[in-house]
Amino acid sequence: MKQNEARNLTMMMDLYELTMANGYFNDQDKDVKVAFDVFYRRNPDDGGFAIFAGLEQIVEYIENLHFGEEDIAYLQSLHIFTEDFLNYLKDFEFKGDVYAFKEGTVMYPNEPIMTIVAPLIDAQLVETAILAQINHQSLIATKTRRIVKAANGRAVSDFGARRAHNNDAAVYGARAAYIGGAVGTATVLAGQMFDIPVSGTMAHSWVMYYKDEFEAFKHYAENYPDGTVLLVDTYDVIKSGIPNAIRVAKEVLEPMGKRLKGIRIDSGDLAYLSKKIRKMLDKAELQDCKIIVSNSLDERTITSIMDQGGQVDSFGVGERLITAKSDPVFGAVYKIAAVMENGVFVPRIKISENIEKITNPGLKDVYRIYDESGHAVADLITRADEEPDMSVPYRYVDPEKPWKNRYFTGCRAVKLQHPVIQGGKLVTKLDSLDEIKKRVKEQLGSEIWEEEQRFENPHRHYLDMSPEYYEMKMSLLHDSRE
Amino acid sequence: MKQNEARNLTMMMDLYELTMANGYFNDQDKDVKVAFDVFYRRNPDDGGFAIFAGLEQIVEYIENLHFGEEDIAYLQSLHIFTEDFLNYLKDFEFKGDVYAFKEGTVMYPNEPIMTIVAPLIDAQLVETAILAQINHQSLIATKTRRIVKAANGRAVSDFGARRAHNNDAAVYGARAAYIGGAVGTATVLAGQMFDIPVSGTMAHSWVMYYKDEFEAFKHYAENYPDGTVLLVDTYDVIKSGIPNAIRVAKEVLEPMGKRLKGIRIDSGDLAYLSKKIRKMLDKAELQDCKIIVSNSLDERTITSIMDQGGQVDSFGVGERLITAKSDPVFGAVYKIAAVMENGVFVPRIKISENIEKITNPGLKDVYRIYDESGHAVADLITRADEEPDMSVPYRYVDPEKPWKNRYFTGCRAVKLQHPVIQGGKLVTKLDSLDEIKKRVKEQLGSEIWEEEQRFENPHRHYLDMSPEYYEMKMSLLHDSRE
Repeated sequence: MKQNEARNLTMMMDLYELTMANGYFNDQDKDVKVAFDVFYRRNPDDGGFAIFAGLEQIVEYIENLHFGEEDIAYLQSLHIFTEDFLNYLKDFEFKGDVYAFKEGTVMYPNEPIMTIVAPLIDAQLVETAILAQINHQSLIATKTRRIVKAANGRAVSDFGARRAHNNDAAVYGARAAYIGGAVGTATVLAGQMFDIPVSGTMAHSWVMYYKDEFEAFKHYAENYPDGTVLLVDTYDVIKSGIPNAIRVAKEVLEPMGKRLKGIRIDSGDLAYLSKKIRKMLDKAELQDCKIIVSNSLDERTITSIMDQGGQVDSFGVGERLITAKSDPVFGAVYKIAAVMENGVFVPRIKISENIEKITNPGLKDVYRIYDESGHAVADLITRADEEPDMSVPYRYVDPEKPWKNRYFTGCRAVKLQHPVIQGGKLVTKLDSLDEIKKRVKEQLGSEIWEEEQRFENPHRHYLDMSPEYYEMKMSLLHDSRE
Repeated sequence: MKQNEARNLTMMMDLYELTMANGYFNDQDKDVKVAFDVFYRRNPDDGGFAIFAGLEQIVEYIENLHFGEEDIAYLQSLHIFTEDFLNYLKDFEFKGDVYAFKEGTVMYPNEPIMTIVAPLIDAQLVETAILAQINHQSLIATKTRRIVKAANGRAVSDFGARRAHNNDAAVYGARAAYIGGAVGTATVLAGQMFDIPVSGTMAHSWVMYYKDEFEAFKHYAENYPDGTVLLVDTYDVIKSGIPNAIRVAKEVLEPMGKRLKGIRIDSGDLAYLSKKIRKMLDKAELQDCKIIVSNSLDERTITSIMDQGGQVDSFGVGERLITAKSDPVFGAVYKIAAVMENGVFVPRIKISENIEKITNPGLKDVYRIYDESGHAVADLITRADEEPDMSVPYRYVDPEKPWKNRYFTGCRAVKLQHPVIQGGKLVTKLDSLDEIKKRVKEQLGSEIWEEEQRFENPHRHYLDMSPEYYEMKMSLLHDSRE
């Protein structure tokens, strides 16, 4: 079920999309075809890659895009738009084409992860919503993958709703976390909307309500004999929490033929406590009782717990995952790449005071280059009107060392963008969430070098250019200098 | 208009709220009256205070709280709830009382900014949504206030939608930014929903579409002669952007009797460029043309620009405001404080391995203490059943130095929590957004010491206790030790 069907998010845009649209409309330029690229410039946390997420919600936004009567009335009240333009908006529907990476694809800076080819006005109006969705979900998927990697096979669950940046961040954040490798979420609405496994047992309030900790645990076990997970840190983990949990296992659960499923600690020295608890549980013949820990976890604290030999089966990760606390801004941008003039797309380039803000101009394709072992050795940007032939040694340009003459041999080139929407209509079956999650896992398992996945100083993936593409960019830069 | 009327956010909760509720229901404890406090432990960015925001959306959530058929069906599919409980949820409505600070009130760590007094099940179910809303909006309001303070009278506008953590973060973040002192937002939906002033002119794509920068500026000026703000950094600010802007002012606008309203720079050395631009504009007799800057701004970069004598009239602040990048987690929590037993509220306390996680037990009131000059000198927690008498010297306890005997004299005590919902019904008129914004400004203007507002090592506001309250807390701690 889609919670958003009831929402009209059309107006989730910066005002300048509308002031530009009004100008294009009045100047009768609105139907000129243009191409915009979406790309980002820097991997979060100085990592080696990011994970593309949010495509499904972008498609929903574009399909639902329409200005209601109250929207038009509001825009009219601003007194900056012409009546003709507002009338035009009343029947506006997106009529363009959208090409995108498959959701869950590993992506790198400065390559076009999405391209919108559309009438000028259509392409402009969808900018803000596309960026907000990609920036949020890719951020959380990428952050979660780091945490999951640190957990090294132990389960990671999203516990972040209460610290998320509002409802959507909780819900779409849970979706992105699942894509990035979380096994589930505590957020019920996310479970319901996306069929993500949900988990949850008790808060400290349950224990405090009963005054007596054993009493509280007993009530819980009687209500959930098949899934008793007890929160043991309300008073004193070692002196009270664990002894009471063991007593419940023996006196309440075992007589029913049930086992204590797990305990959770949410404060204190998690490495130390988990080791001590493991011994206490094992001694009580509760070797199958799982230890779940939570409390401001992220990839650093989890790595530290694991390095100390922490006895943890499962990590509940909240605020630092759902806000991507260590680096909470993902900076995808939306830049015009080409404008149709006399039936031909003419490239546009943005120069800038900041060199890293110079754009890659023109209609282009982007390929992932795989070597014979199936590893992704580089990504390659070509002009849209050329086809790289990998059956012969293929010359490419590393734009940072353009003087070198280098070749791919024995490689395979796979196009990364696929048509998603054409003429405003969805033309592909979007992947299910589990397919997306599986894609992430498979790429990181066998395609992406370990050297790009390490946290410290990861290998930087090459983004190469075809000689023709590089020449085109250089000549535009040259022209603009004049 | 309320965009959320169409959304049912009831399920925006952690699963454990429902597993606990199911347990309480089955044990026939659901109607026991309890009190939960909302408080937070640490000011963001090591600041001296925070700003309470999000109350209006909490009220909306509570008023709309209901489980629809599809919600019940989903919960049933989890196979962990009893049929009786699910039947009960079908007609569930919140029946409790909510007390809260007025929205926009300056708040401090460890004081109850909100108290929910309600049947156990009602109080538990609303936890996640209340926290998510307070945590998000208070975070952004507090961050924005820092940025506004750094701008020292220059306007600050929210430009953050595209980097927000999804739609709600953009929209409610714009609301919170306005509360915190922003003059407006670029996010149209936020303007529409909350009547916040919106602004926006052009992106680089406008300039690049036309190829020729002068041509692009000319088209814009002709469309918006009364509000021409030109983005001058697409190619070269000093050599091309500003000369073209001046030419438009002279050749396009002045013949129409109009003035160039402003220019915006979004890259490069903003301090240096703004000074150089100011001179160029002044020399061209465009002294009234405003300079607007943007590009990864926050309180640090703005302070630096101001310190260098930057000639800026207005700051457009995006990603670092809308994500509160420097400290993106606001940690309000929801802790049980009392349970009714035989008609009397009996306090509950949470001990913890982490000393800062010990709670303030019992039903309580919180007062702001003003001295004769009208400054807020401390906040005071009392038992709910006492009334501090400020007409005589009033003894209080600083819980960190309880051995000292100290008195307030000549002070005024103002209760900070007010009834918002009683028996599930709204019993107050919520403040308008402009009233909330004004409240923030007034408190920070005349009530809150400058020493608490500085960024570096701010004065820590005192949170004192009445002698009776302090005794009660100590005796509970004493009992629990046994």
